[in-house]
Amino acid sequence: MADSLNCDLKSLSPLQLFERVTEQGEKVRALKAGKAPKDEIDAAVRMLLSLKLSYKTATGQDYRAGLPPKDLVLINNGTTKEEDEDLVDPWNVQTSNAKGVDYDKLIVRFGSSKIDTDLINRIERATGQKPHHFLRRGIFFSHRDMDQILDAYENKKSFYLYTGRGPSSQAMHVGHLIPFMFTKWLQEVFDVPLVIQLTDDEKYLWKDMTVEKAYEYAKENAKDIIACGFDINKTFIFSDLDYLGASPGFYKNIVKVQKHVTFNQVKGIFGFTDSDCIGKISFPAIQAAPSFSSSFPQIFNAKENIQCLIPCAIDQDPYFRMTRDVAPRIGQPKPALLHSVFFPALQGAQTKMSASDPNSSIFLTDTPKQIKTKINKHAFSGGRDTVEEHRKYGGNCDVDVSFMYLTFFLEDDDRLEQLKQAYTSGELLTGELKKVLIETMQPLVAAHQERRKQVTDEVVKQFMTPRKLAFEF
Amino acid sequence: MADSLNCDLKSLSPLQLFERVTEQGEKVRALKAGKAPKDEIDAAVRMLLSLKLSYKTATGQDYRAGLPPKDLVLINNGTTKEEDEDLVDPWNVQTSNAKGVDYDKLIVRFGSSKIDTDLINRIERATGQKPHHFLRRGIFFSHRDMDQILDAYENKKSFYLYTGRGPSSQAMHVGHLIPFMFTKWLQEVFDVPLVIQLTDDEKYLWKDMTVEKAYEYAKENAKDIIACGFDINKTFIFSDLDYLGASPGFYKNIVKVQKHVTFNQVKGIFGFTDSDCIGKISFPAIQAAPSFSSSFPQIFNAKENIQCLIPCAIDQDPYFRMTRDVAPRIGQPKPALLHSVFFPALQGAQTKMSASDPNSSIFLTDTPKQIKTKINKHAFSGGRDTVEEHRKYGGNCDVDVSFMYLTFFLEDDDRLEQLKQAYTSGELLTGELKKVLIETMQPLVAAHQERRKQVTDEVVKQFMTPRKLAFEF
Repeated sequence: MADSLNCDLKSLSPLQLFERVTEQGEKVRALKAGKAPKDEIDAAVRMLLSLKLSYKTATGQDYRAGLPPKDLVLINNGTTKEEDEDLVDPWNVQTSNAKGVDYDKLIVRFGSSKIDTDLINRIERATGQKPHHFLRRGIFFSHRDMDQILDAYENKKSFYLYTGRGPSSQAMHVGHLIPFMFTKWLQEVFDVPLVIQLTDDEKYLWKDMTVEKAYEYAKENAKDIIACGFDINKTFIFSDLDYLGASPGFYKNIVKVQKHVTFNQVKGIFGFTDSDCIGKISFPAIQAAPSFSSSFPQIFNAKENIQCLIPCAIDQDPYFRMTRDVAPRIGQPKPALLHSVFFPALQGAQTKMSASDPNSSIFLTDTPKQIKTKINKHAFSGGRDTVEEHRKYGGNCDVDVSFMYLTFFLEDDDRLEQLKQAYTSGELLTGELKKVLIETMQPLVAAHQERRKQVTDEVVKQFMTPRKLAFEF
Repeated sequence: MADSLNCDLKSLSPLQLFERVTEQGEKVRALKAGKAPKDEIDAAVRMLLSLKLSYKTATGQDYRAGLPPKDLVLINNGTTKEEDEDLVDPWNVQTSNAKGVDYDKLIVRFGSSKIDTDLINRIERATGQKPHHFLRRGIFFSHRDMDQILDAYENKKSFYLYTGRGPSSQAMHVGHLIPFMFTKWLQEVFDVPLVIQLTDDEKYLWKDMTVEKAYEYAKENAKDIIACGFDINKTFIFSDLDYLGASPGFYKNIVKVQKHVTFNQVKGIFGFTDSDCIGKISFPAIQAAPSFSSSFPQIFNAKENIQCLIPCAIDQDPYFRMTRDVAPRIGQPKPALLHSVFFPALQGAQTKMSASDPNSSIFLTDTPKQIKTKINKHAFSGGRDTVEEHRKYGGNCDVDVSFMYLTFFLEDDDRLEQLKQAYTSGELLTGELKKVLIETMQPLVAAHQERRKQVTDEVVKQFMTPRKLAFEF
């Protein structure tokens, strides 16, 4: 039993170790302030030094007060962001680079893994399907534990998909469809259940919005999501405001996560302050809980060990780093993740597109004329200042937003490559490239609108009713 | 519009004003640190001074950083507790006085009102019933807005009762029955609906206990509560772990409270620290929400404006001061309160009785023999050291625990007064007083056990099923 402290410490995550050092530091200060007996202070200091050593062994870094370990620190916590780094968290994405965020650096900073050719080939072998162009083109570029999902899948062990959306307004733009388009493909090729969380409670907490309005947006957004073509027999869409009060399993998982995450931790991960409301502070547990299958007893027959795979934009990763830290401590498997890049604003890749600026993107409600005008007027061009210069030096696809949008929405690889070469060589002018984008987006949005019209309130209600899906567990 | 700031400030509670001053102070510091233009800093400082003045006008106190206004400060926040004050919060009760906590001082510090003879007489007139001996004897000694409840009641406007229990173990002691005995009386004389919250989630968060165990304790405790004789047609008992996932109305109120309370506030009220888990930090909203009738749509037909009256021990008041601060901001009526004194431990009134020390009280599972032994062995005596001295100088009922227990459980006023005089004069010896207590408690506990035996799991399930009660709203 003499080694029990060290044994204990070895089983702790870096963040837990960080917490232990911080607590012990506070204890030493309290003892000194209270003029405790010298031997008591000495013992506490020895323990502090030992904890600091364990922390350094585990993380390779010296303990620094107020700076949680890198793996779990987010960048909006100003103290840890280096000068030239991009700002990426669930509420902000900022970079000074016209090409957009440096995703290779982000992988290193977040401690995730790159989706490389090997992994893509493995997905192809496992599913027998050509990988989605989002995979082929590096739009989903990073993952956590996708190899474990495939190991299990190859051994006939199933999993489920979980993704979501914060319904901050009625209007969704084409960028919002990216995770859903990819999730739909995953669901089809793997044939697995899917749960989609609409965090209307989050929007109520963060925005100047009533509970009723947030719930209304959730239902409206559900229509756009359903219009992506999800199978009603395999998909459960839920609003937090609704489902939390309809599933004892969900709340039990929330409270379990809430017991195992401290304010210090969410402060480090999300940058919360003492002035934030307690709803924001406890919210991360609500986004974490759907990662555990027991939150959906109606689907999984109350089984607790079904593995979860979460496709999402990389800015949502902090929630799931936290979830993965907690999971083993509450006896649950860690969710695996697939991360996408951000969808660029029409004005350029320096910022994430915003639903609150109508000119920043193409909205799912835009008319063909609006789409044409927006692209012609606002899409940032990588072309040259004059036709002559463009013909001579060629355009720059790395910063051209029309080309970027085409990588998302033009499925034909050969055509895309042709356009790239023609634009880069100067053969294709900016106006011509924009025309291709307009002709790609107009039918895509029109088809979405047509499908959305078919989605009645009754269909939304069915998708949002807790029920058994077409799978046995 | 020029006066809009001042108008705004007037509508703020002292705690909200405190928050505004704190935020503005942080803003000034940030501006100075960021070397902002002088006029910008000056404007921010002027605003800060104006806010401080409003705070002083509203509270009669100077603003002091880190010290929220008295009305909402709890005493476990060491900085505000004066040397000779008692420690009273939801987790601790301590006093150095053998007579117990000084309740008159507590009324002043908590800013509640004394239940005086006028109020007791008014309750008698309104209900046409002799006031309960807990009222006559000052066991329920303090209130908030009970006069408003009576105003409304006299105008045929109904209300509902809300009380609760934290199911920390299977074993309840006789002290735990006090709020339930009184609530039962209130329900009978006013004929109103009653909701009883079992905070099993709280116990899971605070104790080393599984979710399953906490829920099991909740159901076991429900049996003891039901055995007090509540009417199944007028009473809804719920476990948080269960009901939160069964009522959309409840979660909506929780998230509304959580949006309107900051970490700074719960830190001031409950003494939480950065090392506390986010579950504890957000829990106060879960104890607050049953104060709003819309948490029980099945009972109140989703009506939002039904007034709530909460009988509870005074240590629970911090939750409801917070609730009363939030209520008007989410368009809900403030709950009214009736506060009881603490039930003393057998060993003396210096500490609150604890369910974890079997000798600190008489438990509802004790045999007649155990009751006899405990009282004879452990009940702190106010008698003299020898029979001779006792006969000569008399005993002290103010510190004698047997006498205190009799004030709770012996309903006959004349008998109690006789015992007091006989003990004080020295005519009655300690052993004789203890015998009266033993003879009072033995049948009381035996009768409880008999009634508890009748409470089947099926009956518990019925009480805990969300349903309409025998009232129209």
